[in-house]
Amino acid sequence: MMQWKIQPVIDGLQQARHDWREQQHRIKEFGGRELPSKEVLKSILDSLCGILFPMRLGPSDLRQETEDYYIAYTLDHVLTELYNQVKLTLKYEKKREYNRNNAHSREPLEHPIYDQQDTLAKIIVQDFANTLPDIRRLLDADVSAAYQGDPAAHSVDEVLLCYPGILAIIHHRIAHQLYASVPLLSRVISEIAHSATGIDIHPGAKIGSGFFIDHGTGVVIGETCVIGQRVRIYQAVTLGAKRFEVDEQGSLKKDYARHPIVEDDVVIYAGATILGRITIGQGSTIGGNVWLTHSVPAGSSVSQPPSQSYIKTEV
Amino acid sequence: MMQWKIQPVIDGLQQARHDWREQQHRIKEFGGRELPSKEVLKSILDSLCGILFPMRLGPSDLRQETEDYYIAYTLDHVLTELYNQVKLTLKYEKKREYNRNNAHSREPLEHPIYDQQDTLAKIIVQDFANTLPDIRRLLDADVSAAYQGDPAAHSVDEVLLCYPGILAIIHHRIAHQLYASVPLLSRVISEIAHSATGIDIHPGAKIGSGFFIDHGTGVVIGETCVIGQRVRIYQAVTLGAKRFEVDEQGSLKKDYARHPIVEDDVVIYAGATILGRITIGQGSTIGGNVWLTHSVPAGSSVSQPPSQSYIKTEV
Amino acid sequence: MMQWKIQPVIDGLQQARHDWREQQHRIKEFGGRELPSKEVLKSILDSLCGILFPMRLGPSDLRQETEDYYIAYTLDHVLTELYNQVKLTLKYEKKREYNRNNAHSREPLEHPIYDQQDTLAKIIVQDFANTLPDIRRLLDADVSAAYQGDPAAHSVDEVLLCYPGILAIIHHRIAHQLYASVPLLSRVISEIAHSATGIDIHPGAKIGSGFFIDHGTGVVIGETCVIGQRVRIYQAVTLGAKRFEVDEQGSLKKDYARHPIVEDDVVIYAGATILGRITIGQGSTIGGNVWLTHSVPAGSSVSQPPSQSYIKTEV
Amino acid sequence: MMQWKIQPVIDGLQQARHDWREQQHRIKEFGGRELPSKEVLKSILDSLCGILFPMRLGPSDLRQETEDYYIAYTLDHVLTELYNQVKLTLKYEKKREYNRNNAHSREPLEHPIYDQQDTLAKIIVQDFANTLPDIRRLLDADVSAAYQGDPAAHSVDEVLLCYPGILAIIHHRIAHQLYASVPLLSRVISEIAHSATGIDIHPGAKIGSGFFIDHGTGVVIGETCVIGQRVRIYQAVTLGAKRFEVDEQGSLKKDYARHPIVEDDVVIYAGATILGRITIGQGSTIGGNVWLTHSVPAGSSVSQPPSQSYIKTEV
Amino acid sequence: MMQWKIQPVIDGLQQARHDWREQQHRIKEFGGRELPSKEVLKSILDSLCGILFPMRLGPSDLRQETEDYYIAYTLDHVLTELYNQVKLTLKYEKKREYNRNNAHSREPLEHPIYDQQDTLAKIIVQDFANTLPDIRRLLDADVSAAYQGDPAAHSVDEVLLCYPGILAIIHHRIAHQLYASVPLLSRVISEIAHSATGIDIHPGAKIGSGFFIDHGTGVVIGETCVIGQRVRIYQAVTLGAKRFEVDEQGSLKKDYARHPIVEDDVVIYAGATILGRITIGQGSTIGGNVWLTHSVPAGSSVSQPPSQSYIKTEV
Amino acid sequence: MMQWKIQPVIDGLQQARHDWREQQHRIKEFGGRELPSKEVLKSILDSLCGILFPMRLGPSDLRQETEDYYIAYTLDHVLTELYNQVKLTLKYEKKREYNRNNAHSREPLEHPIYDQQDTLAKIIVQDFANTLPDIRRLLDADVSAAYQGDPAAHSVDEVLLCYPGILAIIHHRIAHQLYASVPLLSRVISEIAHSATGIDIHPGAKIGSGFFIDHGTGVVIGETCVIGQRVRIYQAVTLGAKRFEVDEQGSLKKDYARHPIVEDDVVIYAGATILGRITIGQGSTIGGNVWLTHSVPAGSSVSQPPSQSYIKTEV
Repeated sequence: MMQWKIQPVIDGLQQARHDWREQQHRIKEFGGRELPSKEVLKSILDSLCGILFPMRLGPSDLRQETEDYYIAYTLDHVLTELYNQVKLTLKYEKKREYNRNNAHSREPLEHPIYDQQDTLAKIIVQDFANTLPDIRRLLDADVSAAYQGDPAAHSVDEVLLCYPGILAIIHHRIAHQLYASVPLLSRVISEIAHSATGIDIHPGAKIGSGFFIDHGTGVVIGETCVIGQRVRIYQAVTLGAKRFEVDEQGSLKKDYARHPIVEDDVVIYAGATILGRITIGQGSTIGGNVWLTHSVPAGSSVSQPPSQSYIKTEV
Repeated sequence: MMQWKIQPVIDGLQQARHDWREQQHRIKEFGGRELPSKEVLKSILDSLCGILFPMRLGPSDLRQETEDYYIAYTLDHVLTELYNQVKLTLKYEKKREYNRNNAHSREPLEHPIYDQQDTLAKIIVQDFANTLPDIRRLLDADVSAAYQGDPAAHSVDEVLLCYPGILAIIHHRIAHQLYASVPLLSRVISEIAHSATGIDIHPGAKIGSGFFIDHGTGVVIGETCVIGQRVRIYQAVTLGAKRFEVDEQGSLKKDYARHPIVEDDVVIYAGATILGRITIGQGSTIGGNVWLTHSVPAGSSVSQPPSQSYIKTEV
Repeated sequence: MMQWKIQPVIDGLQQARHDWREQQHRIKEFGGRELPSKEVLKSILDSLCGILFPMRLGPSDLRQETEDYYIAYTLDHVLTELYNQVKLTLKYEKKREYNRNNAHSREPLEHPIYDQQDTLAKIIVQDFANTLPDIRRLLDADVSAAYQGDPAAHSVDEVLLCYPGILAIIHHRIAHQLYASVPLLSRVISEIAHSATGIDIHPGAKIGSGFFIDHGTGVVIGETCVIGQRVRIYQAVTLGAKRFEVDEQGSLKKDYARHPIVEDDVVIYAGATILGRITIGQGSTIGGNVWLTHSVPAGSSVSQPPSQSYIKTEV
Repeated sequence: MMQWKIQPVIDGLQQARHDWREQQHRIKEFGGRELPSKEVLKSILDSLCGILFPMRLGPSDLRQETEDYYIAYTLDHVLTELYNQVKLTLKYEKKREYNRNNAHSREPLEHPIYDQQDTLAKIIVQDFANTLPDIRRLLDADVSAAYQGDPAAHSVDEVLLCYPGILAIIHHRIAHQLYASVPLLSRVISEIAHSATGIDIHPGAKIGSGFFIDHGTGVVIGETCVIGQRVRIYQAVTLGAKRFEVDEQGSLKKDYARHPIVEDDVVIYAGATILGRITIGQGSTIGGNVWLTHSVPAGSSVSQPPSQSYIKTEV
Repeated sequence: MMQWKIQPVIDGLQQARHDWREQQHRIKEFGGRELPSKEVLKSILDSLCGILFPMRLGPSDLRQETEDYYIAYTLDHVLTELYNQVKLTLKYEKKREYNRNNAHSREPLEHPIYDQQDTLAKIIVQDFANTLPDIRRLLDADVSAAYQGDPAAHSVDEVLLCYPGILAIIHHRIAHQLYASVPLLSRVISEIAHSATGIDIHPGAKIGSGFFIDHGTGVVIGETCVIGQRVRIYQAVTLGAKRFEVDEQGSLKKDYARHPIVEDDVVIYAGATILGRITIGQGSTIGGNVWLTHSVPAGSSVSQPPSQSYIKTEV
Repeated sequence: MMQWKIQPVIDGLQQARHDWREQQHRIKEFGGRELPSKEVLKSILDSLCGILFPMRLGPSDLRQETEDYYIAYTLDHVLTELYNQVKLTLKYEKKREYNRNNAHSREPLEHPIYDQQDTLAKIIVQDFANTLPDIRRLLDADVSAAYQGDPAAHSVDEVLLCYPGILAIIHHRIAHQLYASVPLLSRVISEIAHSATGIDIHPGAKIGSGFFIDHGTGVVIGETCVIGQRVRIYQAVTLGAKRFEVDEQGSLKKDYARHPIVEDDVVIYAGATILGRITIGQGSTIGGNVWLTHSVPAGSSVSQPPSQSYIKTEV
């Protein structure tokens, strides 16, 4: 058993935290941590996957005869779990706003009042629950698109079990539904999918039906993207912002449209980088590794210049 | 404790499932879920890693003197676990075929007969077990290739412990062995590796000995690839299909050769995209970010055109 | 319950291990496995994250009033855990050296003497502990850089909770601190981050303050990279080696400077590949998908040639 | 890492097992272990407790509105789990009988045929399921009896949550239902309750409604006991056999009535020992620590002779 | 996968619950389950054991230098956990009272108002925390008594690690402290100890310092017992009620003094049964298996009559 | 999130610990906790049960063909685990002796030297391993005795799976083997069995072969008991000390023979209490609830006087 000199480390960390909080105007923060939990949200998402696709992603001993029982019991449970996470997130936002408003106060602070958060959370969760059947129908179209769009897919079941693109879009359609009301929580959901699949879809992105991402590692879809129906994209495609606007204080402007619009039936091949609020016209094909920062009309085909090859005279 | 209005959600989900099953001609499906389990296969793969490399990936208190005991006990156990997963997969295929054949029947169906699945599963698993020594020898060559091919590698042990490319190729060589008989199961194995490493190797790909993937995130190797000996590839390399052929009904043709052939001693640098049933001749070097859709002869060197640089007049 | 024919498999695996060990001059290895454990290091890193950011990454019921208690207790515990892993790693290095020195001996070997490893491990861990406050300050600057550099970031809390780039840099700054003394252990730490985020930073890389990686999947930063202050890079950027030097025996030379130097205030966009011991001058901007193998002066802007687009006459 | 001399131990254990199996005529046993699992049965019993008393022993977030969903889903699952354990038990009995019949054979044996076990198991489990409502009603009467019979009980909920006697009787009523068809399995269930509560009720015992055991530690109720309605017993009461009959070979006779009959409305106080096939007449009271080996008529009161007390002249 | 006929079982269980609830006047119960959780309380008690005896029952890597850090962090956490359980219990009592008051109402009910429960719970938990140092001192005296009273005890550490009597008295002193305010919760705590040790001490019992129970299995100490200082008792001792008084309605009277008073320095040997509101005078010795229902003066010695022995003429 | 006033509690606990340590002459204790762990020993005992009875208490998928592999691997592992626990216990004893010797020193203490503990622990564990085959043979005789002695036992397998007496005797025979060298550790083992079965056998007790405890709850067998062959005892039997001798200082004498000698073929029925260093002669029968404090010759039969019964005239 070792004996460590830890007091200077504790003091040093305390000072570092103090400096940071002063810089962030948080010195007077009180109370506990009101933040959504990644572990709890992971388990919520696992349950929602089972609710949406009970015979494929639900418990292994489920039978079709008892699907509805399973769904009813699990749904009731998972909505309550989600409700708790939504409440935490709403309280976090409330406390953050409150801390910001009182940053320069010298008085000891009261705790912010949380009276509306419970009611609001209840509404958010019930609204979310109501959209689950529509989410399932959207995802069915996504599964069909994957099956029909990949020669390597032998069944829709294989798509549901093995395709990271499907896992990502299930998480996205759930996160997107929650984005307007609890953006921080929806970001945690999208990062759960990102970590598992390498596919990074911002929950703010609007994505039409029949969407298919193949392989997917390295795909990035930005916050203000608008994607039409039956779009297909491959690994390492970026739909990003080109440059960031700054306001008069020199700070980044936030929340303005800065990512591409991709119209219906577009295909974007691996490694293409598409930046800025441009429009990829309907039915266009964007080739692999393309670098694109301007709009292209419907029916365009974009490819990168051919690479040079020659016979090596020495290895 | 909240009280949710869940009945409309349950009904909506039920209707969505009903519509999907009708569309998929599955309305009369019966029985439970016959599908391989990702969690069980993860644990099987962990055990197989320990069996193949007992002193590096086996239990931490193992000693060389008791290696064989550990292997014998674990192998017997893990083959039985695998056998159960193989049986599930074979029954799934059988049921799927049966459902397809009876899609338009109006009669209540009997359960499909599963009489040969047990025997077949036994043969598949015993055959798989018999190849484990050869798989170990192939993997030894892969480890050597990584150690010799990366200046940052300080020992073969570091390669086994830290290189995602090695984890991916262990999973691939196991999955490939099972691909002919239980393709769905082998796809689940390859996705386990994909999620952990960002390296997506289809279990159908044929890969020679001494194969090394460095860093690896974003690598995609398609189903019908054929890769020779001593090939080395870097992160974000795609060996994919160029375009998909359709049959007379307009459906995608499946299972035809559509991915590259990479001959012995080829090196492919980061981000290169190589598409279609083309051949990269022996000893060729493919540069980073190259986009290549035609064959190149042995000893070729392919590079992308230089990027343009200039001094910014304003930042 | 099946009965498997496993004896030939066991024998075959034994022979394969024997051949490998002979080839690696390890035939006389003795004792157990002295190797750091990925699972234990994962749990150590989780605790260190909590120690560095108690109210954001620590236990969910922590309050600001009891932060220091939590840190003190956890720190004492985690340093002892780390100490055990450092000892294992030092013994591994010692045994490896010993095996190498005695590879051709015909005599039965004594166990190598481990007398200095405990003392050395204690020094390494105490030194590491002492740097934690500085690591926290560096990470605060990284968090600020992310918040200020991404229009999609709504708070520094969101950055800490959701940005894989932050997770990667926390792991890196810890791993880098341990790199000089226990390189194998620090490599395991970097692979933990790589598997979770798709960001592969070699623990040897030197990285200045205010570093921000956005999205991050596919980023590779090599062992001898030197990165200045306030650098920002995007997904799929490679800072790699161009070619590998060989010594007179034809083996790869190891441990020489072969990766880029990136000066202060450089921005590198998605998919850029920068190879070799070149210098990217201060304040330069490297465009997406660029392929760069030569130095550029301060204030440079590098972009790839435009992709070709045309209207498809047929789809 | 120590190195142990284990080969002689292994050999010694092997020889000991060999000798035992020879003595037990088991030398030719084959196949795996067909035995019910204590861990699985524990989890089955937990689920059955939840099914029987959903709002008291079910999941903590259950609401009355979703009770039936929870029960339906859990019941379907738990019956399948139980079915697997019943099958194992039936196969064990079959194999045991087969081994016994072939104990003196010199030929290598075929595996015994298990063809009827599956069908039989299905019938047993469905029959068991059908009795669950009656078991619940019996248990309700037991709970009422406990509440009415103990001045320390403040609510029926306290009885369900805190009384080991209730836990024991829940397990007993379930085990008793299974005793006729799978006695070994029912014995495992009764031992689960015994270990948790110190109350040892043989699953063969017949126990009427409104049964209450207070405190309970050390209670033993033998296999052939018959207990009437509204009986109340206290800790350390034994209802056992007086002596064991032997057959002509000098072996113990098994399965004959050898334990007491306790008629309706009897109360037996702590530590009383009642042995043999005697009858305790209706409404009798048996005092604490009594030793009773003969029948007593209805309305009897039995007490032990008074203890002697005197003032100690020295301590 | 079997298919069970579960609908009749579900309906039967529903009807049984309905009948029970009607009989219990609970038909209109609403909301979720407000009940303390045995699992959570187990973990709370484990933490409290660590807080009270950090170097013996705390985490295995604790050192004396960091005891207070551990205690502070753990205490803050465990009080919050306990607070949640206390709140549940108070709400349960409130709801129970409310249901009782509205048992005959025909109107749909509002949810009972829980406004004071939070404040009350906070007071209860803070009061409990304040007594922990006194509880520790009491327990130290208990440990000393065990060490001095048992020739088999070789150290006070052995007493803390191995004596079930100590585990039981730790749980009791905690449960007793909570008994006046949350009796149901304290009963769950006492049952946790009863199940682990076979020692059943009602949380209402008043027990002086220096109390020692040896072996302990089967000990029962009733709700209204009063036990003096330095009392020692052995396994299977009962301190119970002799008979139960009934009120005019024929229901059991509850909450009146009905268990023995045991004065200072009394020793009670194994199996003694002492019943009723009698007094065992100071310094008395009660022999094994004694049955005692009347008071004895100070300095008494009570023993049971000698057993009869003779030489068996036949076995 | 509540905010607790914990500083006074922390201070109060600190003062209580300080007072206790002063009283125990421990004020200068240093270093960590050297104590065997109940959790680790539980898992060691589970493994040893599997090693001793692989096909009954080992892993559920074991087959007879691979028994020896399982045993070899598990044995090597479990001996190392046990070795670590033995070392902790030896260091504890050493530190305790050292603290005692230096209780009155005013100087800061060095850490006690632990140089011989490792070697000693190795010898203890290897010796223990060598006795395992003999332990198995003893246990086989115990199992046979149970099967032959209980009419309710239907097979030796039922005895191994369901009889708490067998679980207790397995733990005892293991603990007894370790008692001479690491008494504290063996006491922890015996308490594990006591908690699970209610049977409290001190590891010092000497017990001959063919020993059978039926039901067992409440059985207590003291440290210096000597029990012959083929002895059978029932629940709640005490073999204890009658009185405790004190030395000249008035402290209890420890470690002298003070418990009964029970000769071969004795049967002791439920609830009998036998106290002091007396001898129960060969073949005797001791009746239920008997209180016995003097020796009886071979062939004795002891019973308690009959209880009084009469017809109650009123209830």
